[in-house]
Amino acid sequence: MGEGASRARVVILGGGFAGLEAAKALAAAPVEVTLIDRQNHHLFQPLLYQVATAALAPADVAWPIRGVLSDQRNARVLMAEAGGIDLAARRVRTTAGEFAYDFLVVATGATHAYFGHDDWAAFAPGLKRIEDATAIRRRILMAFERAELEDEAAARQALTTFVVVGGGPTGVEMAGAIADIARHALPPDFRRVDPAAARVLLIEAGPRILPAFPEALSAYAQRALTRMGVEVRTGTAVTGVDAAGVLLGGERVAAGAVVWAAGVQASPAGSWLGAAHDRAGRVEVGPDLTVPGHPEVFVVGDTAAAKTEAGRPIPGLAPAAKQMGRFAGETIAARVGGRSAPVRFRYRHQGDLATIGRKAAIVSFGRLTLTGFLGWAFWSVVHVYFLIGLRNRIAVALSWLWDYVTFGRKSRLITEPARG
Amino acid sequence: MGEGASRARVVILGGGFAGLEAAKALAAAPVEVTLIDRQNHHLFQPLLYQVATAALAPADVAWPIRGVLSDQRNARVLMAEAGGIDLAARRVRTTAGEFAYDFLVVATGATHAYFGHDDWAAFAPGLKRIEDATAIRRRILMAFERAELEDEAAARQALTTFVVVGGGPTGVEMAGAIADIARHALPPDFRRVDPAAARVLLIEAGPRILPAFPEALSAYAQRALTRMGVEVRTGTAVTGVDAAGVLLGGERVAAGAVVWAAGVQASPAGSWLGAAHDRAGRVEVGPDLTVPGHPEVFVVGDTAAAKTEAGRPIPGLAPAAKQMGRFAGETIAARVGGRSAPVRFRYRHQGDLATIGRKAAIVSFGRLTLTGFLGWAFWSVVHVYFLIGLRNRIAVALSWLWDYVTFGRKSRLITEPARG
Repeated sequence: MGEGASRARVVILGGGFAGLEAAKALAAAPVEVTLIDRQNHHLFQPLLYQVATAALAPADVAWPIRGVLSDQRNARVLMAEAGGIDLAARRVRTTAGEFAYDFLVVATGATHAYFGHDDWAAFAPGLKRIEDATAIRRRILMAFERAELEDEAAARQALTTFVVVGGGPTGVEMAGAIADIARHALPPDFRRVDPAAARVLLIEAGPRILPAFPEALSAYAQRALTRMGVEVRTGTAVTGVDAAGVLLGGERVAAGAVVWAAGVQASPAGSWLGAAHDRAGRVEVGPDLTVPGHPEVFVVGDTAAAKTEAGRPIPGLAPAAKQMGRFAGETIAARVGGRSAPVRFRYRHQGDLATIGRKAAIVSFGRLTLTGFLGWAFWSVVHVYFLIGLRNRIAVALSWLWDYVTFGRKSRLITEPARG
Repeated sequence: MGEGASRARVVILGGGFAGLEAAKALAAAPVEVTLIDRQNHHLFQPLLYQVATAALAPADVAWPIRGVLSDQRNARVLMAEAGGIDLAARRVRTTAGEFAYDFLVVATGATHAYFGHDDWAAFAPGLKRIEDATAIRRRILMAFERAELEDEAAARQALTTFVVVGGGPTGVEMAGAIADIARHALPPDFRRVDPAAARVLLIEAGPRILPAFPEALSAYAQRALTRMGVEVRTGTAVTGVDAAGVLLGGERVAAGAVVWAAGVQASPAGSWLGAAHDRAGRVEVGPDLTVPGHPEVFVVGDTAAAKTEAGRPIPGLAPAAKQMGRFAGETIAARVGGRSAPVRFRYRHQGDLATIGRKAAIVSFGRLTLTGFLGWAFWSVVHVYFLIGLRNRIAVALSWLWDYVTFGRKSRLITEPARG
């Protein structure tokens, strides 16, 4: 097969776990890959809560996409924002012009959902982008700064109350990390405020936190959080969010910062396809992750409402996104190479894990169940292993080790929105 | 001497080199220190250019002020912005209310001066705050991103032209670092743009770059920069700056990013004192760094127009700021303790140094003159030594070592202004 125009053009929208895996799976294929993302970096989202709680710096969990793909000569990276898909003409519209494709992989991820209350977003940021994490960090640290300036104890208590909405892994990890930094890292820094007396509330509408885990692990996590001083409220719905705090039914809780870790909404890219989607905007794909009627269009990762063979929804986890991305890339490579492509994506659930502060984690990997420090150690190894790139693997490992030993938090910076 | 109200109240405005040293010099004195800064972090400004050129992350060069002073029990830190000084009533007005003082140390630093062209600031950011550095980094990296999307070679060349205005140490270091990242770090990442062909111009209005150094070292630096591909233009005045680039007399140079490293303007805190100041706004202080007629008010660091015994201006360098801050703190401690205070601040010039890319530096330390790699090694040791805090010393040392060996730039992130 020759060079240039004769090669199949693969356009990948999104440089997250799914998009990057799709690109890498095409490394040896006679195709031209164009990966388009509106950010210049791939983000290791599972660790983003550590940026939000000042344990890691943004550069510890994000990598320039160009760097990841610099050695893959059949791939180019463009920083642009997609704005539409013309399925008939097989073209993607972006802020950098139109791109024709022979195969399209939509991997634009998801964002937060406020269940119809988009006005809450301004007061309760979610945790999807680097900028979300630094904004949440700024709110948490600024709450302590403002409290230090307050004369009245009641005002200080209100400012040092933190509400995390949503009892999934992200919410549990955020609540634990906020309690940790308040109890252990901040106290020596303040004179008037006692950060150790900060209140942290974790609000979950359902009957238990971490519903994806076995019940015993949920119960363990709740006990561990409670021991750390987190007030866990299950079966509690948030009915209002504003600058002063949250409303829980009739109860008003004044808070210095509110973090949203509840709903998920797929990116609008799905709707451009005009395909059927579920309530969260996830595109309903066939067993081979393509859009019905368009075998050249794959939807993967959090943008897809994919199902296991048993008909159960595939969870919105990093390993699932990577598996889907790899499947799409390998399928395209097979079809371009004239080989038979698999007709069905088979999701292999590796397990669930979540940290609870810096002392414990819960792990549910098939028959393996771990809690406490052993769980934390397992969680650490898994995360460091999966981080892309040697440099960051070493840096993150050292950073953790150091923090674990000293509780020093190098990244306790408040940065303002840039002016330039 | 008792506790509480009987202790002298020392208010320090600014947590830079001068302000922090003043606070530390008072650690053993029977005083109550209140350090007020509008940022929560102390910044190691001499390395800020490395953040702007994506070699270091913000957290590598900034430390929470609270952390630096957490063990000093007679000091409290408040995050607030000063807005005025009432000399007669001995009170400072801030966004967090008024603070009475018995001694005041003004150490609010300096910012850039655009010589009456404040409209240039939007197009040519200077390098004083973390946010300035990340804004410049974003502009430089975005210029390459935009160039990669350009079909025309001329447009790509314009976007990958970078102009640094001002041939002092900061300008020289910025120009060298931009040339370095363009030539060595970025090329594998781009397909259409050749970053190695980027133009870097260093514009200096005076007859030579680095005028504070001996002439031979200036000449060496100019040769070294030229060898790295930097176009050095001395005796050239910038007559205009806009979104498209700069005007050098009659010549228009289209540029993807312009960096301002020329003028310095003292912070407005000086003018609140109603004292005499020079054209750059620096307060004219007496030999003991106090404001004439107000022995309880010290002005130190870049805010002061202090002079050596020989009547020469004390340069705006980190060591000078630290020496002045320490002098102010020690003088206050002596006066509070009833000991005789020195009547004259004696500046000890330790030397001048500047890096030129990652291969060379020039050092002028009294009779010691170093260039090339030896200069760079000396510069590295000095800077790592002066970085505050063990953690960051190790992290920066490892980061440099790694970068030096691999040219990997972990921090090549473009982050947007945060929304929260």
